[in-house]
Amino acid sequence: MQKHFISPAVIRRLPRYYRYLSELLEEGIERISSSELSRKMNVTASQIRQDLNNFGGFGQQGYGYNVQYLYTEIGKILGLDQQYHLIIIGAGNLGRALANYKKFEDRGFKIKGIFDSDLSLCGQPVAHLTIQHVNQLERFIKEENISIAALTLPKEQAEDMAKQLVDYGIQGIWNFAHTDLQLVKNVLVENVHLSESLMRLSYRLTNR
Amino acid sequence: MQKHFISPAVIRRLPRYYRYLSELLEEGIERISSSELSRKMNVTASQIRQDLNNFGGFGQQGYGYNVQYLYTEIGKILGLDQQYHLIIIGAGNLGRALANYKKFEDRGFKIKGIFDSDLSLCGQPVAHLTIQHVNQLERFIKEENISIAALTLPKEQAEDMAKQLVDYGIQGIWNFAHTDLQLVKNVLVENVHLSESLMRLSYRLTNR
Repeated sequence: MQKHFISPAVIRRLPRYYRYLSELLEEGIERISSSELSRKMNVTASQIRQDLNNFGGFGQQGYGYNVQYLYTEIGKILGLDQQYHLIIIGAGNLGRALANYKKFEDRGFKIKGIFDSDLSLCGQPVAHLTIQHVNQLERFIKEENISIAALTLPKEQAEDMAKQLVDYGIQGIWNFAHTDLQLVKNVLVENVHLSESLMRLSYRLTNR
Repeated sequence: MQKHFISPAVIRRLPRYYRYLSELLEEGIERISSSELSRKMNVTASQIRQDLNNFGGFGQQGYGYNVQYLYTEIGKILGLDQQYHLIIIGAGNLGRALANYKKFEDRGFKIKGIFDSDLSLCGQPVAHLTIQHVNQLERFIKEENISIAALTLPKEQAEDMAKQLVDYGIQGIWNFAHTDLQLVKNVLVENVHLSESLMRLSYRLTNR
Protein backbone atom coordinates (compact mmCIF):
# COMPACT_ATOMS: atom_id res chain seq x y z
CA MET A 1 0.00 0.00 0.00
CA GLN A 2 1.28 3.42 -0.90
CA LYS A 3 1.66 5.93 1.93
CA HIS A 4 -0.37 9.07 1.56
CA PHE A 5 -1.61 11.89 3.76
CA ILE A 6 -4.23 10.92 6.33
CA SER A 7 -5.94 13.68 8.29
CA PRO A 8 -5.29 14.01 12.03
CA ALA A 9 -9.01 13.49 12.74
CA VAL A 10 -8.89 10.11 11.02
CA ILE A 11 -5.70 9.21 12.87
CA ARG A 12 -7.38 10.01 16.17
CA ARG A 13 -10.13 7.54 15.35
CA LEU A 14 -7.84 4.74 14.12
CA PRO A 15 -7.07 3.15 17.52
CA ARG A 16 -10.80 2.66 18.04
CA TYR A 17 -11.20 1.01 14.63
CA TYR A 18 -8.22 -1.14 15.48
CA ARG A 19 -9.79 -2.23 18.76
CA TYR A 20 -13.09 -3.17 17.11
CA LEU A 21 -11.34 -5.02 14.30
CA SER A 22 -9.30 -6.97 16.85
CA GLU A 23 -12.54 -8.00 18.58
CA LEU A 24 -14.03 -9.11 15.26
CA LEU A 25 -10.94 -11.22 14.61
CA GLU A 26 -11.25 -12.79 18.07
CA GLU A 27 -14.84 -13.67 17.20
CA GLY A 28 -13.63 -15.27 13.94
CA ILE A 29 -15.39 -12.73 11.71
CA GLU A 30 -13.61 -12.45 8.36
CA ARG A 31 -15.52 -9.66 6.68
CA ILE A 32 -17.91 -6.94 7.70
CA SER A 33 -19.99 -4.34 5.89
CA SER A 34 -19.72 -0.68 6.75
CA SER A 35 -23.31 -0.74 8.01
CA GLU A 36 -22.63 -3.62 10.41
CA LEU A 37 -19.45 -1.95 11.64
CA SER A 38 -21.43 1.27 11.94
CA ARG A 39 -23.97 -0.36 14.27
CA LYS A 40 -21.24 -1.89 16.40
CA MET A 41 -19.19 1.28 16.70
CA ASN A 42 -22.10 3.68 16.97
CA VAL A 43 -20.86 5.98 14.20
CA THR A 44 -22.45 6.57 10.80
CA ALA A 45 -21.72 4.16 7.95
CA SER A 46 -20.73 7.12 5.80
CA GLN A 47 -18.11 8.19 8.37
CA ILE A 48 -16.72 4.66 8.37
CA ARG A 49 -16.59 4.55 4.57
CA GLN A 50 -14.88 7.91 4.41
CA ASP A 51 -12.36 7.00 7.11
CA LEU A 52 -11.53 3.56 5.74
CA ASN A 53 -11.31 4.78 2.14
CA ASN A 54 -7.99 6.22 3.26
CA PHE A 55 -6.66 2.70 3.24
CA GLY A 56 -7.31 1.90 -0.39
CA GLY A 57 -9.97 0.00 -2.19
CA PHE A 58 -10.52 -3.01 0.00
CA GLY A 59 -14.02 -2.05 0.99
CA GLN A 60 -15.90 -3.59 -1.92
CA GLN A 61 -19.54 -3.19 -2.83
CA GLY A 62 -21.41 -6.32 -1.80
CA TYR A 63 -18.39 -7.76 0.01
CA GLY A 64 -17.59 -5.28 2.75
CA TYR A 65 -14.26 -5.08 4.47
CA ASN A 66 -11.75 -7.85 4.89
CA VAL A 67 -11.25 -7.70 8.65
CA GLN A 68 -7.76 -9.18 8.80
CA TYR A 69 -6.44 -6.99 5.99
CA LEU A 70 -7.89 -3.81 7.43
CA TYR A 71 -6.60 -4.71 10.90
CA THR A 72 -3.11 -5.29 9.55
CA GLU A 73 -3.05 -2.10 7.47
CA ILE A 74 -4.30 0.09 10.29
CA GLY A 75 -1.78 -1.57 12.59
CA LYS A 76 1.00 -0.60 10.17
CA ILE A 77 -0.16 3.02 10.05
CA LEU A 78 -0.16 3.11 13.85
CA GLY A 79 3.33 1.63 13.95
CA LEU A 80 2.15 -1.51 15.73
CA ASP A 81 4.05 -3.76 13.32
CA GLN A 82 7.23 -2.42 14.88
CA GLN A 83 8.40 -3.33 18.34
CA TYR A 84 8.83 -0.51 20.80
CA HIS A 85 10.67 -1.06 24.06
CA LEU A 86 9.00 0.65 26.96
CA ILE A 87 9.90 1.35 30.59
CA ILE A 88 7.76 2.53 33.48
CA ILE A 89 9.06 5.19 35.86
CA GLY A 90 7.24 5.09 39.18
CA ALA A 91 6.40 1.75 40.78
CA GLY A 92 3.25 2.88 42.59
CA ASN A 93 -0.15 1.35 41.92
CA LEU A 94 -0.53 2.97 38.52
CA GLY A 95 2.93 1.89 37.38
CA ARG A 96 2.21 -1.64 38.57
CA ALA A 97 -1.14 -1.62 36.77
CA LEU A 98 0.60 -0.71 33.50
CA ALA A 99 3.27 -3.39 34.05
CA ASN A 100 0.50 -5.97 34.34
CA TYR A 101 -1.33 -5.11 31.10
CA LYS A 102 -0.83 -8.13 28.93
CA LYS A 103 -2.35 -6.49 25.87
CA PHE A 104 0.49 -4.04 25.34
CA GLU A 105 2.90 -6.79 24.39
CA ASP A 106 0.48 -8.14 21.74
CA ARG A 107 0.51 -4.70 20.16
CA GLY A 108 4.24 -4.37 19.88
CA PHE A 109 5.01 -2.61 23.15
CA LYS A 110 7.47 -4.63 25.16
CA ILE A 111 7.68 -3.52 28.77
CA LYS A 112 11.35 -3.99 29.63
CA GLY A 113 11.68 -2.41 33.06
CA ILE A 114 10.10 -0.58 35.96
CA PHE A 115 11.99 2.01 38.02
CA ASP A 116 11.52 3.94 41.22
CA SER A 117 13.55 6.41 43.28
CA ASP A 118 12.52 4.65 46.50
CA LEU A 119 15.36 2.28 47.39
CA SER A 120 13.09 0.21 49.63
CA LEU A 121 11.04 -0.83 46.57
CA CYS A 122 14.05 -1.87 44.49
CA GLY A 123 14.37 -5.61 44.03
CA GLN A 124 10.62 -6.21 44.44
CA PRO A 125 8.94 -8.17 41.66
CA VAL A 126 6.18 -6.59 39.53
CA ALA A 127 4.64 -8.78 36.83
CA HIS A 128 7.63 -10.27 34.94
CA LEU A 129 9.94 -7.46 36.09
CA THR A 130 12.02 -6.43 39.10
CA ILE A 131 11.90 -2.84 40.32
CA GLN A 132 15.19 -1.06 39.64
CA HIS A 133 16.53 2.20 41.01
CA VAL A 134 16.28 5.27 38.79
CA ASN A 135 20.06 5.66 38.90
CA GLN A 136 20.17 2.68 36.51
CA LEU A 137 18.09 4.49 33.88
CA GLU A 138 20.83 5.89 31.67
CA ARG A 139 22.60 2.55 31.26
CA PHE A 140 19.37 0.61 30.86
CA ILE A 141 17.82 2.91 28.25
CA LYS A 142 20.92 2.66 26.09
CA GLU A 143 21.57 -1.07 26.54
CA GLU A 144 17.95 -2.08 26.04
CA ASN A 145 17.18 0.34 23.24
CA ILE A 146 14.22 1.89 25.07
CA SER A 147 12.19 4.43 23.10
CA ILE A 148 9.12 5.01 25.29
CA ALA A 149 8.89 5.86 28.99
CA ALA A 150 5.61 5.82 30.89
CA LEU A 151 5.77 8.42 33.67
CA THR A 152 3.67 7.54 36.70
CA LEU A 153 5.24 10.03 39.07
CA PRO A 154 3.98 12.94 41.16
CA LYS A 155 3.92 16.10 39.04
CA GLU A 156 6.68 17.70 41.14
CA GLN A 157 9.14 15.05 39.93
CA ALA A 158 7.85 14.58 36.40
CA GLU A 159 9.40 17.58 34.66
CA ASP A 160 12.97 16.91 35.86
CA MET A 161 12.69 13.22 35.15
CA ALA A 162 11.38 13.93 31.64
CA LYS A 163 14.37 16.14 30.89
CA GLN A 164 16.76 13.43 32.07
CA LEU A 165 14.99 10.82 29.99
CA VAL A 166 15.36 12.93 26.87
CA ASP A 167 19.09 13.26 27.59
CA TYR A 168 19.28 9.48 27.85
CA GLY A 169 17.66 9.07 24.45
CA ILE A 170 13.96 8.50 25.14
CA GLN A 171 11.82 9.51 22.15
CA GLY A 172 8.30 9.34 23.50
CA ILE A 173 6.83 9.96 26.95
CA TRP A 174 3.49 8.51 27.97
CA ASN A 175 2.74 10.95 30.73
CA PHE A 176 0.36 10.21 33.60
CA ALA A 177 1.66 12.99 35.86
CA HIS A 178 -0.71 15.93 36.36
CA THR A 179 1.29 18.32 34.24
CA ASP A 180 1.72 18.86 30.51
CA LEU A 181 5.55 18.54 30.42
CA GLN A 182 5.66 21.49 28.08
CA LEU A 183 9.19 22.50 28.95
CA VAL A 184 10.56 19.30 27.50
CA LYS A 185 11.77 19.62 23.91
CA ASN A 186 12.78 16.96 21.40
CA VAL A 187 10.39 14.37 22.69
CA LEU A 188 6.83 13.37 21.85
CA VAL A 189 4.50 13.56 24.85
CA GLU A 190 1.15 11.81 25.06
CA ASN A 191 -0.73 12.93 28.15
CA VAL A 192 -3.25 10.89 30.11
CA HIS A 193 -4.91 13.34 32.49
CA LEU A 194 -7.27 11.16 34.51
CA SER A 195 -8.70 13.99 36.57
CA GLU A 196 -9.70 15.86 33.39
CA SER A 197 -11.60 12.83 32.22
CA LEU A 198 -13.43 12.66 35.56
CA MET A 199 -14.27 16.38 35.27
CA ARG A 200 -15.80 15.81 31.84
CA LEU A 201 -18.00 13.12 33.38
CA SER A 202 -18.91 15.50 36.19
CA TYR A 203 -19.80 18.20 33.64
CA ARG A 204 -22.10 15.85 31.80
CA LEU A 205 -23.75 14.64 35.03
CA THR A 206 -24.29 18.19 36.23
CA ASN A 207 -25.66 19.47 32.91
CA ARG A 208 -27.57 16.40 31.74
CA MET B 1 -23.46 34.53 36.50
CA GLN B 2 -26.18 33.75 34.04
CA LYS B 3 -26.08 30.31 32.44
CA HIS B 4 -25.85 30.30 28.68
CA PHE B 5 -24.85 27.92 25.94
CA ILE B 6 -21.18 26.96 25.86
CA SER B 7 -19.91 24.97 22.89
CA PRO B 8 -18.73 21.38 23.40
CA ALA B 9 -15.25 22.32 22.15
CA VAL B 10 -14.92 24.90 24.92
CA ILE B 11 -16.25 22.42 27.47
CA ARG B 12 -13.60 19.93 26.39
CA ARG B 13 -10.91 22.48 27.12
CA LEU B 14 -12.28 23.61 30.48
CA PRO B 15 -10.65 20.91 32.65
CA ARG B 16 -7.28 22.02 31.34
CA TYR B 17 -7.97 25.68 32.16
CA TYR B 18 -9.14 24.55 35.56
CA ARG B 19 -5.90 22.67 36.17
CA TYR B 20 -3.73 25.63 35.17
CA LEU B 21 -5.79 28.05 37.26
CA SER B 22 -5.44 25.74 40.26
CA GLU B 23 -1.67 25.79 39.79
CA LEU B 24 -1.67 29.58 39.61
CA LEU B 25 -3.64 29.72 42.86
CA GLU B 26 -1.14 27.36 44.50
CA GLU B 27 1.61 29.75 43.42
CA GLY B 28 -0.32 32.65 44.97
CA ILE B 29 -0.96 34.39 41.64
CA GLU B 30 -4.11 36.53 41.83
CA ARG B 31 -4.44 37.76 38.27
CA ILE B 32 -3.07 36.87 34.89
CA SER B 33 -3.24 38.34 31.40
CA SER B 34 -4.39 36.26 28.47
CA SER B 35 -0.92 36.51 26.94
CA GLU B 36 0.78 35.14 30.08
CA LEU B 37 -1.77 32.34 30.33
CA SER B 38 -1.27 31.73 26.61
CA ARG B 39 2.48 31.21 27.09
CA LYS B 40 1.91 28.86 30.01
CA MET B 41 -0.74 26.78 28.30
CA ASN B 42 0.81 26.82 24.86
CA VAL B 43 -2.36 27.98 23.10
CA THR B 44 -2.96 31.33 21.40
CA ALA B 45 -4.02 34.32 23.47
CA SER B 46 -6.94 34.82 21.12
CA GLN B 47 -8.18 31.28 21.78
CA ILE B 48 -7.98 31.94 25.51
CA ARG B 49 -9.87 35.22 25.19
CA GLN B 50 -12.57 33.59 23.10
CA ASP B 51 -12.92 30.64 25.44
CA LEU B 52 -12.96 32.66 28.64
CA ASN B 53 -15.33 35.29 27.23
CA ASN B 54 -17.95 32.59 27.72
CA PHE B 55 -17.71 33.30 31.41
CA GLY B 56 -18.65 36.96 31.32
CA GLY B 57 -16.68 40.18 31.41
CA PHE B 58 -14.09 39.50 34.03
CA GLY B 59 -11.16 39.60 31.68
CA GLN B 60 -10.52 43.33 31.74
CA GLN B 61 -8.20 45.34 29.53
CA GLY B 62 -5.08 46.18 31.49
CA TYR B 63 -6.06 43.96 34.40
CA GLY B 64 -6.30 40.47 32.98
CA TYR B 65 -8.21 37.66 34.64
CA ASN B 66 -8.96 37.29 38.30
CA VAL B 67 -7.60 33.79 38.88
CA GLN B 68 -9.76 32.86 41.88
CA TYR B 69 -12.96 34.08 40.26
CA LEU B 70 -12.30 32.28 36.98
CA TYR B 71 -11.30 29.11 38.83
CA THR B 72 -14.52 29.18 40.85
CA GLU B 73 -16.77 29.88 37.85
CA ILE B 74 -15.20 27.15 35.70
CA GLY B 75 -15.48 24.80 38.67
CA LYS B 76 -19.22 25.54 38.86
CA ILE B 77 -19.70 24.85 35.15
CA LEU B 78 -17.88 21.54 35.56
CA GLY B 79 -20.05 20.66 38.56
CA LEU B 80 -17.08 20.61 40.92
CA ASP B 81 -18.91 22.74 43.48
CA GLN B 82 -21.19 19.76 44.06
CA GLN B 83 -20.11 16.64 45.85
CA TYR B 84 -20.31 13.38 43.92
CA HIS B 85 -19.99 10.07 45.73
CA LEU B 86 -17.91 7.59 43.81
CA ILE B 87 -17.10 3.89 44.12
CA ILE B 88 -14.45 1.78 42.43
CA ILE B 89 -15.31 -1.66 41.06
CA GLY B 90 -12.22 -3.80 40.70
CA ALA B 91 -9.54 -3.76 43.40
CA GLY B 92 -6.60 -4.53 41.14
CA ASN B 93 -3.66 -2.17 40.73
CA LEU B 94 -5.60 0.36 38.70
CA GLY B 95 -8.51 0.42 41.16
CA ARG B 96 -6.04 0.85 44.02
CA ALA B 97 -4.27 3.65 42.17
CA LEU B 98 -7.56 5.54 41.79
CA ALA B 99 -8.42 4.97 45.46
CA ASN B 100 -5.14 6.61 46.39
CA TYR B 101 -5.57 9.81 44.33
CA LYS B 102 -5.90 12.54 46.93
CA LYS B 103 -6.77 15.20 44.37
CA PHE B 104 -10.19 13.76 43.56
CA GLU B 105 -11.55 14.63 46.98
CA ASP B 106 -10.41 18.26 46.65
CA ARG B 107 -12.47 18.46 43.47
CA GLY B 108 -15.68 17.20 44.95
CA PHE B 109 -15.35 13.48 44.21
CA LYS B 110 -15.60 11.52 47.41
CA ILE B 111 -14.42 7.92 47.02
CA LYS B 112 -16.75 6.00 49.31
CA GLY B 113 -15.93 2.37 48.55
CA ILE B 114 -13.94 -0.20 46.58
CA PHE B 115 -15.40 -3.54 45.52
CA ASP B 116 -14.20 -6.78 44.04
CA SER B 117 -15.72 -10.14 43.15
CA ASP B 118 -12.69 -11.96 44.60
CA LEU B 119 -13.62 -13.00 48.13
CA SER B 120 -9.97 -13.38 49.12
CA LEU B 121 -9.45 -9.63 48.63
CA CYS B 122 -12.45 -8.60 50.70
CA GLY B 123 -11.55 -7.05 54.06
CA GLN B 124 -8.18 -5.81 52.81
CA PRO B 125 -7.47 -2.10 53.33
CA VAL B 126 -6.88 0.22 50.35
CA ALA B 127 -6.15 3.85 51.15
CA HIS B 128 -8.89 4.89 53.64
CA LEU B 129 -11.20 2.09 52.47
CA THR B 130 -11.78 -1.63 52.98
CA ILE B 131 -12.43 -3.86 49.97
CA GLN B 132 -16.03 -5.10 49.93
CA HIS B 133 -17.62 -7.87 47.94
CA VAL B 134 -19.65 -6.89 44.87
CA ASN B 135 -22.73 -8.52 46.39
CA GLN B 136 -22.85 -5.49 48.71
CA LEU B 137 -23.16 -3.07 45.80
CA GLU B 138 -26.92 -2.63 45.61
CA ARG B 139 -27.29 -1.82 49.30
CA PHE B 140 -24.20 0.39 49.37
CA ILE B 141 -25.10 2.45 46.30
CA LYS B 142 -28.51 3.26 47.73
CA GLU B 143 -27.41 3.89 51.32
CA GLU B 144 -24.41 6.00 50.40
CA ASN B 145 -26.06 7.90 47.56
CA ILE B 146 -23.41 6.88 45.03
CA SER B 147 -23.69 8.49 41.60
CA ILE B 148 -20.42 7.53 39.88
CA ALA B 149 -18.75 4.13 39.51
CA ALA B 150 -15.20 3.71 38.22
CA LEU B 151 -14.95 0.38 36.40
CA THR B 152 -11.50 -1.17 36.54
CA LEU B 153 -12.51 -4.65 35.45
CA PRO B 154 -11.58 -6.97 32.60
CA LYS B 155 -13.72 -6.17 29.57
CA GLU B 156 -15.49 -9.53 29.79
CA GLN B 157 -17.05 -8.53 33.11
CA ALA B 158 -17.58 -4.84 32.44
CA GLU B 159 -20.76 -4.91 30.36
CA ASP B 160 -22.74 -7.05 32.82
CA MET B 161 -21.50 -5.09 35.79
CA ALA B 162 -22.42 -1.82 34.10
CA LYS B 163 -25.99 -3.01 33.53
CA GLN B 164 -26.30 -4.02 37.19
CA LEU B 165 -24.94 -0.67 38.32
CA VAL B 166 -27.53 1.18 36.25
CA ASP B 167 -30.26 -0.93 37.86
CA TYR B 168 -28.88 0.03 41.26
CA GLY B 169 -29.10 3.73 40.39
CA ILE B 170 -25.61 4.68 39.18
CA GLN B 171 -25.75 7.72 36.88
CA GLY B 172 -22.23 7.92 35.52
CA ILE B 173 -19.63 5.28 34.71
CA TRP B 174 -15.95 6.12 34.49
CA ASN B 175 -14.92 3.20 32.37
CA PHE B 176 -11.37 1.84 32.24
CA ALA B 177 -12.33 -1.53 30.74
CA HIS B 178 -11.30 -2.07 27.11
CA THR B 179 -14.80 -1.79 25.74
CA ASP B 180 -17.16 1.10 25.02
CA LEU B 181 -20.11 -0.16 27.13
CA GLN B 182 -22.43 0.83 24.31
CA LEU B 183 -25.16 -1.56 25.26
CA VAL B 184 -25.75 0.25 28.51
CA LYS B 185 -28.57 2.81 28.33
CA ASN B 186 -29.63 5.52 30.78
CA VAL B 187 -26.15 6.16 32.05
CA LEU B 188 -23.36 8.54 31.09
CA VAL B 189 -20.13 6.76 30.19
CA GLU B 190 -16.73 8.41 30.12
CA ASN B 191 -14.16 6.06 28.65
CA VAL B 192 -10.46 5.99 29.44
CA HIS B 193 -8.89 3.72 26.84
CA LEU B 194 -5.24 3.58 27.84
CA SER B 195 -4.16 1.38 24.96
CA GLU B 196 -5.60 3.87 22.44
CA SER B 197 -3.54 6.61 23.99
CA LEU B 198 -0.41 4.44 23.68
CA MET B 199 -1.27 3.75 20.01
CA ARG B 200 -1.50 7.49 19.32
CA LEU B 201 1.98 7.87 20.77
CA SER B 202 3.18 4.97 18.64
CA TYR B 203 1.67 6.60 15.54
CA ARG B 204 3.47 9.84 16.23
CA LEU B 205 6.77 8.05 16.91
CA THR B 206 6.48 6.04 13.73
CA ASN B 207 5.51 8.99 11.53
CA ARG B 208 7.57 11.75 13.12
